[in-house]
Amino acid sequence: MNYKMIGKIISQIIFIEALFMIPALLICIVDRDWYAVKGFVVTLGIIALVSMLMYSICRHAERGFYAKEGLVCVGVSWCVLSLMGCLPFFLSGEIPNFVDALFETVSGFTTTGASILNDVEAMSRGMLYWRSFSHWIGGMGVLVLLLAVSLKDDKGNGFTMHLLRAESPGPNVGKLVPKMKRTAVILYLLYFALTIADFIFLLIGRMPIFDAVCTAFGTAGTGGFGIKNDSIASYSPYIQNVCTVFMLLFGVNFSCYYLLLLGRIKAVFKDEELRLYVAIVLGSIALITFNVWKMFGSFQEALQQVAFQVASIVTTTGFATTDFDQWPSFSKTIILMLMILGACAGSTGGGLKCGRALLIVKNLRRNLRKLLNPNRIEVVRNNGQKIDETVLNNTNTYLAAYAIIILLSLLIVSLDGLSMESNISAVISCFNNIGPGFDTVGPTCNFAVYGIPSKIILILDMLSGRLEIFPMLVLFSKTTWKHR
Amino acid sequence: MNYKMIGKIISQIIFIEALFMIPALLICIVDRDWYAVKGFVVTLGIIALVSMLMYSICRHAERGFYAKEGLVCVGVSWCVLSLMGCLPFFLSGEIPNFVDALFETVSGFTTTGASILNDVEAMSRGMLYWRSFSHWIGGMGVLVLLLAVSLKDDKGNGFTMHLLRAESPGPNVGKLVPKMKRTAVILYLLYFALTIADFIFLLIGRMPIFDAVCTAFGTAGTGGFGIKNDSIASYSPYIQNVCTVFMLLFGVNFSCYYLLLLGRIKAVFKDEELRLYVAIVLGSIALITFNVWKMFGSFQEALQQVAFQVASIVTTTGFATTDFDQWPSFSKTIILMLMILGACAGSTGGGLKCGRALLIVKNLRRNLRKLLNPNRIEVVRNNGQKIDETVLNNTNTYLAAYAIIILLSLLIVSLDGLSMESNISAVISCFNNIGPGFDTVGPTCNFAVYGIPSKIILILDMLSGRLEIFPMLVLFSKTTWKHR
Repeated sequence: MNYKMIGKIISQIIFIEALFMIPALLICIVDRDWYAVKGFVVTLGIIALVSMLMYSICRHAERGFYAKEGLVCVGVSWCVLSLMGCLPFFLSGEIPNFVDALFETVSGFTTTGASILNDVEAMSRGMLYWRSFSHWIGGMGVLVLLLAVSLKDDKGNGFTMHLLRAESPGPNVGKLVPKMKRTAVILYLLYFALTIADFIFLLIGRMPIFDAVCTAFGTAGTGGFGIKNDSIASYSPYIQNVCTVFMLLFGVNFSCYYLLLLGRIKAVFKDEELRLYVAIVLGSIALITFNVWKMFGSFQEALQQVAFQVASIVTTTGFATTDFDQWPSFSKTIILMLMILGACAGSTGGGLKCGRALLIVKNLRRNLRKLLNPNRIEVVRNNGQKIDETVLNNTNTYLAAYAIIILLSLLIVSLDGLSMESNISAVISCFNNIGPGFDTVGPTCNFAVYGIPSKIILILDMLSGRLEIFPMLVLFSKTTWKHR
Repeated sequence: MNYKMIGKIISQIIFIEALFMIPALLICIVDRDWYAVKGFVVTLGIIALVSMLMYSICRHAERGFYAKEGLVCVGVSWCVLSLMGCLPFFLSGEIPNFVDALFETVSGFTTTGASILNDVEAMSRGMLYWRSFSHWIGGMGVLVLLLAVSLKDDKGNGFTMHLLRAESPGPNVGKLVPKMKRTAVILYLLYFALTIADFIFLLIGRMPIFDAVCTAFGTAGTGGFGIKNDSIASYSPYIQNVCTVFMLLFGVNFSCYYLLLLGRIKAVFKDEELRLYVAIVLGSIALITFNVWKMFGSFQEALQQVAFQVASIVTTTGFATTDFDQWPSFSKTIILMLMILGACAGSTGGGLKCGRALLIVKNLRRNLRKLLNPNRIEVVRNNGQKIDETVLNNTNTYLAAYAIIILLSLLIVSLDGLSMESNISAVISCFNNIGPGFDTVGPTCNFAVYGIPSKIILILDMLSGRLEIFPMLVLFSKTTWKHR
């Protein structure tokens, strides 16, 4: 294991994190929130110390960097990032319990949006800014950012490829351009442009600037932290509709936007995953609207609210405008299925991803055909291209790991004695980086009801979900740490 | 597709079914239940007619019989078996609704034990006997029986192998001896002997003969139909303990018993699946007893009741002595996990099977190791033997199909508006052939609350679960019916 190289990367990552804390610190100074200022200043000091110490030890790292190092580096980076990121909340005393502060931070970076706060509005503006900004960093990924701004492309052993592959969501990492560094830059530029567009549309709806910034961060990262106790419910229908549209846009594979920029519109419209995503969104909105129509004042209101909820859940954002826990079972079951499914691969959304679901179904059909005609050779294709058997195997392995992690988490979380519905939805919601669940963790409630052991399990679930299991799993595997 | 051969086999299967109805008919005659007698007599007439007609058309079938025919034959056989088997209930008027009668029969043959009857004790004894006996036939499988008593072993195209493989539970069909026919005979002899032993132990506990026969059938097939409204709760602790032990015994892979008879005790003790099964049973009993201890009068009573419930659920029998729906979430979560897991492959129990779970975990670990060291060759072993990649691939495909079927079923069942907990547990319970679920389908309730569409979906789930998905899935696949 190339520990030095991993250490070097982590020292750079927390340095970037520190830079990102400065705007939040400035807001605290403007607002004269001295406790919050203390929290950020002490944190910045700690990060500076750790980062410099690590960098000076690890700066002369060797070059050997393989798949193993990539996975471990991503897993450890996210843990360290979260540990440092939670310090302002904890040190300022705004979240006095350390595990709670960590939960809130991991929920931010993993773009989950599950909160342990009973009163969000009691937080200082600097902390709210930092909390929402964590969604924005986590959405596209911090290693992708590091790659875009600092690391050099290597020609030799695919160092950057291993990193990007381990952090990017989806079964099949698509390089937009042959060079990984340029891919990362393009991704962040697209991300930045879309976020700005969202922000401007929110401003047009007369949303206060601070609210618009935080909401844009939460939407872009498909995170879901609101800065009001009722999430987005008290804003105007226009603002809610802007959120609906942008949540859905951030759930699309970013390579589609790149293709659009290149003028390859036909390729975008033919993308099988995008088609499935659109079909599922429209289908879900239609079915649920039909089911809950009479609970709202008018058909139009029902449609608007349902579209918002569907967009919020399928993209795993988790903003709320209405309490879907009160909806009939049929609608709740669709919501549950959307929670598991998630958005497109290569987007900022979480969940299983439409693309992976597509591969699972195609592989199932292929294997069924092979069962019927054992001697025929059948391949699985996506957008006309043959999918490698390793990818298919890993997709199925992913599903198995997913099921096992959900069940084991459920067992530990159930020790707190809440209802089965709460526990199942809490675990699914955290793992798929959504935010709200049903019953005691429904859209109008929060995760403060759980005990410390459950919160730790849910923290691990959020990280596993965001990093798509393997970078977290390898940290707990003996093979990783064995010398050869 | 060799339709004639399939028709020939089905004509033989329903002929055997008719023979099995005769004891039930005799009981009705002795009890002078003339409506029930009418039901059986008319059914026997219909079966005789259909069977003879089919046999005369299909008797000169060609020999070509492949995997495809095996799967289709098993799927269609079970559908026809159920359609014929439900006629006595329907024609006698004891279950006036046809879908209800079909639900009860499929629940019997698939050894589920989920009932739509509000008052079991109102049924005639002949019907109760037929209802319980369907568990016994379904437990080991009707095609295995046909193979044991009638079909000839072929040397050519593995005709019997395709049948046995499609009907037998588990990822890997183990032949006990090289010849399939002899394997089938040995399996049924072991099954018969164990059932007799169960019956004798129940008689020793002064259980009435009729009750002992029906309970032995329900235990042997790991079915779970009781003949009392409170299932097994009103019998003595001795009888309950006998049930506990025999449920667990019928959940063991029958090849272990064959190895025991051959004196290969060491091989049995080293069997990885058996070890896992025993560990899970003991672990679950310990954890749940610890969790619910104070709900019972004494530690001993708690232990006895918990052992019964764990045995009943893990073997997917579904007998009840206490209402586990009242237990705390932690215990209910363990019960839910046992429902999904199920007993050993090659037993009469349902569920995912311990052996398949073992393969899934081993494959996951292997793929994780391969992710860390892409160039190493890693194989998955079970009991020291290399597992074929096709088996691993099919196991993962099975898991994917399982998840998809559960979710789609859930969606349709949720239209009835019952709670999420009821719906999730109803689908899982039916698919895994258990019987009771939680909430409105808990151990003290039944499935009468669901509407016709939900019942049809649950019927399909029970059949898919018992036949391990593929024989049912191929019936709905275009490839199956396409001419080449």
